[in-house]
Amino acid sequence: MRLTIAYDGGEFRGWAAQPGERTVQGELAGALQRILGEPVELTVAGRTDAGVHARGQVASFELDREPPPNLARSLNAVTPPDLAVTAADPAPDGFDARRDARSRTYLYRLLASAVPDPFERDRALWWPHRVDRAALDACAAALIGSHDFTAFTPTETDHVRFERDVVRAEWVEEPAAAGGSLLSLWIEADAFMRHMVRVLVGTMLEVAGGRRTVDDFTSLLTGASRSQAGETAPPHGLYLMSVSYRPDSSTSPRLAGRPGR
Amino acid sequence: MRLTIAYDGGEFRGWAAQPGERTVQGELAGALQRILGEPVELTVAGRTDAGVHARGQVASFELDREPPPNLARSLNAVTPPDLAVTAADPAPDGFDARRDARSRTYLYRLLASAVPDPFERDRALWWPHRVDRAALDACAAALIGSHDFTAFTPTETDHVRFERDVVRAEWVEEPAAAGGSLLSLWIEADAFMRHMVRVLVGTMLEVAGGRRTVDDFTSLLTGASRSQAGETAPPHGLYLMSVSYRPDSSTSPRLAGRPGR
Repeated sequence: MRLTIAYDGGEFRGWAAQPGERTVQGELAGALQRILGEPVELTVAGRTDAGVHARGQVASFELDREPPPNLARSLNAVTPPDLAVTAADPAPDGFDARRDARSRTYLYRLLASAVPDPFERDRALWWPHRVDRAALDACAAALIGSHDFTAFTPTETDHVRFERDVVRAEWVEEPAAAGGSLLSLWIEADAFMRHMVRVLVGTMLEVAGGRRTVDDFTSLLTGASRSQAGETAPPHGLYLMSVSYRPDSSTSPRLAGRPGR
Repeated sequence: MRLTIAYDGGEFRGWAAQPGERTVQGELAGALQRILGEPVELTVAGRTDAGVHARGQVASFELDREPPPNLARSLNAVTPPDLAVTAADPAPDGFDARRDARSRTYLYRLLASAVPDPFERDRALWWPHRVDRAALDACAAALIGSHDFTAFTPTETDHVRFERDVVRAEWVEEPAAAGGSLLSLWIEADAFMRHMVRVLVGTMLEVAGGRRTVDDFTSLLTGASRSQAGETAPPHGLYLMSVSYRPDSSTSPRLAGRPGR
């Protein structure tokens, strides 16, 4: 089964279940056990950190029988209000939300305004400072392609490879409800490392504020050390928006009706 | 002085200061005293109830000296994150945010969707039920003009007159981020009574669900009793969006520079 879920990360200690902590995985697994009557093992496309939001997170689990009808609706009746299952679809045998994901798309929202907005306080980073929009755009353009993002993840991160393929990186601007503008970084890559989008944003904001050059930013994309990049932007501006899969691992009406899955 | 303020009403016990309760007036008066060094008496355009939000609330107070520069900015440095001062402008002598208001505009937001949205949980009423859009529009059209709204305020409400002049009442629909649609009632009137928008919405939703006719709704606008109208919709969908004033009571550069105000 494949679940698409949305959550306001503000009151979760991130995705991964931890004893004694309120986590997305913990709440979702509890809801599933309540509805299905048996425990399931969840695999997730993007393990979000504490405070990070999701609109299109994907989780998968194996079920040896037909799922109950209206599973999403049943789950939403028991999930807390800051977590919703937006879809529950059958998936091909062996579907794995993490391994089968082709790319993830994240959004980082900045409220560039002299005045704070109470309705964005946990939803966007309030940034009443100088923003050189052209510099942001130049940084985003530099991200496209395959780069070594060692500088943009904590030094303790344990990865085999630090290269990631960025297929979209773009700042989108729209007027904000309370004045100023909302500046949103949309970034899609095959995969992301821990804190990667947040360190990218923190570093780009140094460029946008005139404290670092675009060239310096670009030079970090060839495997510099973490200490050369900027601060980690706070989690509350970050959203996992969607995860894409190969066509053969996505839901289709044919698969949905196939018996014995 | 005239302050324009925005607040997320979720964690306030409404506008009016009450001993031992966290209220918008209490927080704002505290911030003003801290910045101005003296207590001020606040008058407000619309006394919102617990849980009701505001984007364009207006409050006034008298100040016998020139206001400090950047008053809004100074206030925002000490207000809590769910309350912001979006503007602090000089106002004509004797300006009274409540008495001088010509009209108030409220917004009520419905999330008409089978799926809840965690990001709208305290911002819109989730309504996964039948909505006959044409019926909503017919109800809104019936509101325009002068009517007796006795049926739409608690029986204990103590008013001299129950007529109100509605100059705008309109449902606006837009796609919702998580599917379904956001249905927003925009309503502007000279003044509102307690719970008026919320009882109007609660009653309109009965019409939209086929449990009451448009004719019945219309018949309530001639001074029916509270028990004949529908339920009071919850506060978290309601926003005071703006307050309009006569041109002679609004800020102008000329007045702002006038000495001794």
